[in-house]
Amino acid sequence: MSEAAPIRPIPADQVGEWAYEADVVVAGFGVAGAAAAVGAAQSGADVLVLERTGGWGGAAAMAGGFIYMGGGTPVQKACGFEDSVDDMKAFMKAALGPGTDDAKIDVYCEGSVDHYHWLADECGVPFKMSFWGEPGWEPPADDGLQYSGGENSAPFSTTIRPAPRGHIPQMQNKRESAERGGGYMLMKPLTDKAAELGVRSEYDMRVQALIVDADGRVVGLRAKQYGKDVDVRARRGVVLATGSFAYNNQMLESFAPKMVNRPAASIEEHDGRAIQMAQAIGADLAHMDAAEVAYFCDPQLFTRGILVNGRGQRYINEDTYPGRVGQATLYENQNQSFVVIDEAAYEEGASRPTATPELRHRPTWVAETVEELEAEMGLPAGALQSTVEVYNRHAEQGVDPLFGKKAEWVKPIGTPIAAIDMRGLTGGFTLGGLRTSVDSEVLHVTGDPIPGLFAAGRCTAGVCAGGYASGASLGDGSFFGRRAGISAAKN
Amino acid sequence: MSEAAPIRPIPADQVGEWAYEADVVVAGFGVAGAAAAVGAAQSGADVLVLERTGGWGGAAAMAGGFIYMGGGTPVQKACGFEDSVDDMKAFMKAALGPGTDDAKIDVYCEGSVDHYHWLADECGVPFKMSFWGEPGWEPPADDGLQYSGGENSAPFSTTIRPAPRGHIPQMQNKRESAERGGGYMLMKPLTDKAAELGVRSEYDMRVQALIVDADGRVVGLRAKQYGKDVDVRARRGVVLATGSFAYNNQMLESFAPKMVNRPAASIEEHDGRAIQMAQAIGADLAHMDAAEVAYFCDPQLFTRGILVNGRGQRYINEDTYPGRVGQATLYENQNQSFVVIDEAAYEEGASRPTATPELRHRPTWVAETVEELEAEMGLPAGALQSTVEVYNRHAEQGVDPLFGKKAEWVKPIGTPIAAIDMRGLTGGFTLGGLRTSVDSEVLHVTGDPIPGLFAAGRCTAGVCAGGYASGASLGDGSFFGRRAGISAAKN
Repeated sequence: MSEAAPIRPIPADQVGEWAYEADVVVAGFGVAGAAAAVGAAQSGADVLVLERTGGWGGAAAMAGGFIYMGGGTPVQKACGFEDSVDDMKAFMKAALGPGTDDAKIDVYCEGSVDHYHWLADECGVPFKMSFWGEPGWEPPADDGLQYSGGENSAPFSTTIRPAPRGHIPQMQNKRESAERGGGYMLMKPLTDKAAELGVRSEYDMRVQALIVDADGRVVGLRAKQYGKDVDVRARRGVVLATGSFAYNNQMLESFAPKMVNRPAASIEEHDGRAIQMAQAIGADLAHMDAAEVAYFCDPQLFTRGILVNGRGQRYINEDTYPGRVGQATLYENQNQSFVVIDEAAYEEGASRPTATPELRHRPTWVAETVEELEAEMGLPAGALQSTVEVYNRHAEQGVDPLFGKKAEWVKPIGTPIAAIDMRGLTGGFTLGGLRTSVDSEVLHVTGDPIPGLFAAGRCTAGVCAGGYASGASLGDGSFFGRRAGISAAKN
Repeated sequence: MSEAAPIRPIPADQVGEWAYEADVVVAGFGVAGAAAAVGAAQSGADVLVLERTGGWGGAAAMAGGFIYMGGGTPVQKACGFEDSVDDMKAFMKAALGPGTDDAKIDVYCEGSVDHYHWLADECGVPFKMSFWGEPGWEPPADDGLQYSGGENSAPFSTTIRPAPRGHIPQMQNKRESAERGGGYMLMKPLTDKAAELGVRSEYDMRVQALIVDADGRVVGLRAKQYGKDVDVRARRGVVLATGSFAYNNQMLESFAPKMVNRPAASIEEHDGRAIQMAQAIGADLAHMDAAEVAYFCDPQLFTRGILVNGRGQRYINEDTYPGRVGQATLYENQNQSFVVIDEAAYEEGASRPTATPELRHRPTWVAETVEELEAEMGLPAGALQSTVEVYNRHAEQGVDPLFGKKAEWVKPIGTPIAAIDMRGLTGGFTLGGLRTSVDSEVLHVTGDPIPGLFAAGRCTAGVCAGGYASGASLGDGSFFGRRAGISAAKN
């Protein structure tokens, strides 16, 4: 653990020389850090961002770009969807739990339309006023809105009025270049805005430890820059925004062992260091076991078939948000899953547009009967046949009483029939981290804020406790990042 | 959070007067604390135990009394079972994970026979050399050995030679009095031994905060005694042994939300305070989401039937350790479960001895056919019928290809048929807590031991990561409690 030693806080009186200094010092230049920098600068602070890599962007710039917003945004309205703050709150509390931080969700939802305007109008993030309604992880082209959490599917749609809340910055044919995807089109305007506001940035800055004064107030950070320790003074506050711990296997073993060696939509810099730096001064944690889990198959396929676990049993409505499928597969079904689909449905799904052609797997097994397919898959006699029989019996009436799949996707499964072997094909990033207040203050285990310390993004436990919706990470990263910057600037 | 403030460490130079003093100060007089006290005293230390209630015992004294031991103990041998350290290690790593602390399991298994002799020969814990082999949470009488983790069932029994490792101190007709149960018969000799060794104890001592010197070494504890703050000096070390956080709803919301308002086999003193006191000086945590989960039904019943989830699907082999059933129900099946059993099997099960007659529920629904039962249970047509049909088809051959239930328990389900509504009927205690070394040192987030601070029992992450076996808590509490006492004494 020799590399870990610098995690311990450094007393301010041991600092010889401050190499850099600013009102607000932000660690990490992904979405939370960029939003914090803009928020702090707009509040009149002199801001310095320390970034470990050679440039801004973080995992956000490589992401599809979903930002979870609602309550009646201009994009929602232009696309003909009604939404309310209350519906948004109800959905998030139901879908992202159990154990959600309801105060955090409340301010997030109440401030969501304002957040949209801040992103779009003040920061210049482009949104196209168009909706993509087919199954998929992301829109295949540049549409600006999509259902991204299962709002319009069971079990939520029966009790909470659904609205799509996945807002995507307008991409420029993302398949051509990573520098034109939705995440890039969020980060480019945000960091341009930061630069315009005079935010400074230093690169190759690997944060090591917090610098704390005699009263326990965080007054700076020690970082390694080009191999040398440098101390950075924060006159008003430090904002931690360095991402998840998806690449720290020791932390995963301790907190989220099912995610060991399963990182996706993350970058190697996500090593949990900032979480540990804050733990070392008594910061509390939350939801360390929670994770976003992608199911690596094209929803255009599996929505048209059925998903069964390692015992041939259905376990979820196939028309829900594919991230719910991922979580149910990894956490509740031993990461064992198969897509069962008939030839006609497969061909139809495969002919539809998709943003993820690489997830359009070819069938692993094909058979003339369910019995034969079941045997080829190695399932006990009757296991899959009974599943298909019960599904088909109700599908003939257009219903799915077991899971409430929408009528439009309920169709008896015919022959020839195929299965895609999806066992083990999940991955994602951790959602747990530092416990923070609605104003992005890092909370001590006593429940009190730690003076001078703020955090946002995936190094914190944000709006998600157990569940997930696409856009929740860029959503709470940008929303609570901005608040972290404002809080630090006013500190 | 006003009550939480004292969680912060107190600088030693702010202590006016030491109200008490000892070489080793142990917080908590349950199993881990008692074992620590004996271990420390046997190592020559002057020991003081601080207990919050009015007497020794903790949750342990009220427990059934299982202690997980193996590798060839005298009880195992007398009952005709062969076991080895390697088999024990293999089982524990497979059944208590994912994410087990393998170094901890290694020393635990390698020292298990010695631990037995320490308990039995040095401390005088009585064990009867007899085995109870029927399904059940505990033996109905005073037998000393039982399978307590599913060792002899799928999936473990096919790859790891099974041996029963649940050792129960000989009880004295436990149904008559809580003061004669297995847990009591562990705690009485342990605390008698402590007294014999000169261990002192103070009651009504509610620990508040650690006292730390200028070098970061833990040198004592502040406690509230009869409403007054008292400072207690530990010349060599402090041992935290105050139990789980099963009664701290804020911690449960943050870390194990499925366990909120679901404590069982715990006591109200299990408020997580000691975990937070150590967090406040940078102690690391592990497996905060993990929990022991009891399924509140008599295994004599459900082993003879099938267990189905809220969709009428089987989800586990019914002959496994009932704690695995509890975990699978709560964590993987939305806490929805039914026991489905025919009249003959019910009557047979209900006529067998049990330690838990209060869990011998009467059927919720009874029907002449599966179809009728399915309708009464509110399940979609075919959901339960297909489950029973597939189960029976294979049961006629004496096999259970889906889950590998042992042949002796596989029998076609006939009619009349009944179901017991078990939805929501689970509960238990948390398994996560402070991360400790194999020598029970509390580890800082850097990975280094915190000088002067030791811990054991359910305020630590012990041998369990995700899974559980009965006896693992009294097992690792006593094993690592003893080591905590020895480490502190030698400190």
